[in-house]
Amino acid sequence: MDLLKPYDDTYFMKRALMEAEAAFEKDEIPIGAVIVIDNQIIARAHNLTETLNDVTAHAEMQAITAAANYLGGKYLKKCTLYVTLEPCQMCAGALYWSQIDKIIYGARDVQRGCIAMSTKLHPKTNMSGGVLEEEASGLLKRFFIEKRNMN
Amino acid sequence: MDLLKPYDDTYFMKRALMEAEAAFEKDEIPIGAVIVIDNQIIARAHNLTETLNDVTAHAEMQAITAAANYLGGKYLKKCTLYVTLEPCQMCAGALYWSQIDKIIYGARDVQRGCIAMSTKLHPKTNMSGGVLEEEASGLLKRFFIEKRNMN
Repeated sequence: MDLLKPYDDTYFMKRALMEAEAAFEKDEIPIGAVIVIDNQIIARAHNLTETLNDVTAHAEMQAITAAANYLGGKYLKKCTLYVTLEPCQMCAGALYWSQIDKIIYGARDVQRGCIAMSTKLHPKTNMSGGVLEEEASGLLKRFFIEKRNMN
Repeated sequence: MDLLKPYDDTYFMKRALMEAEAAFEKDEIPIGAVIVIDNQIIARAHNLTETLNDVTAHAEMQAITAAANYLGGKYLKKCTLYVTLEPCQMCAGALYWSQIDKIIYGARDVQRGCIAMSTKLHPKTNMSGGVLEEEASGLLKRFFIEKRNMN
């Protein structure tokens, strides 16, 4: 860790990756997210769609709800979301409503991500990706290889 | 009610409208939804974004979660969603993951609805609209007029 910049994108994406690993251990597709304001993590979550039997239980959705709960208001205007995989239509649509300041993702989802799906982000939101991309996609690949070998 | 077809689209959309009216009474944007399988309502919900301080608390999202909970599985393959307003990107994205059979909406949302936003639905999902459209849009108009007069 760079002592001059302890709280950089890599630092927070590592925390999102720890969430993804927690999902992996629960046999969930390993995707994790944290939401940050003023260098402070105010929400952390991982995918729980299988555990909760709920397609809406993506890491980002839970993190949005938790962050709004922490802030006491539904808008996340000064927040940054770190998520290990590019958000899907649903999550990007939720982020649209939240008016979040920044979205930073790890790996691209070229099939079902919001870029391929042309989901509209809020005009105030900036999105970029590629932070710890290999770690994020490596974890996903390992999950699906293990799944295939079990069946 | 047509005695030969007691459970038609109008019947279920009326139930969705009753949910929208419940939202109105709570000072929430009046949008309601029900999810139906085999002519039985298995989930009913209304917009609660203000009450819960949560942009994800749209009627459809809550109905999807409730229906999956009722069915004990996350897919809504044989279900129909009745919703008083055309779903947004987030809700259409959630419906994509649910693989729901049918979406029937009341009024169009020409600004932020999934049609204007080009949100992709699941290939197995059919969507149509216009059922009790005037009632649904009338309720929304009345809400925003009252809001404006209060401020």
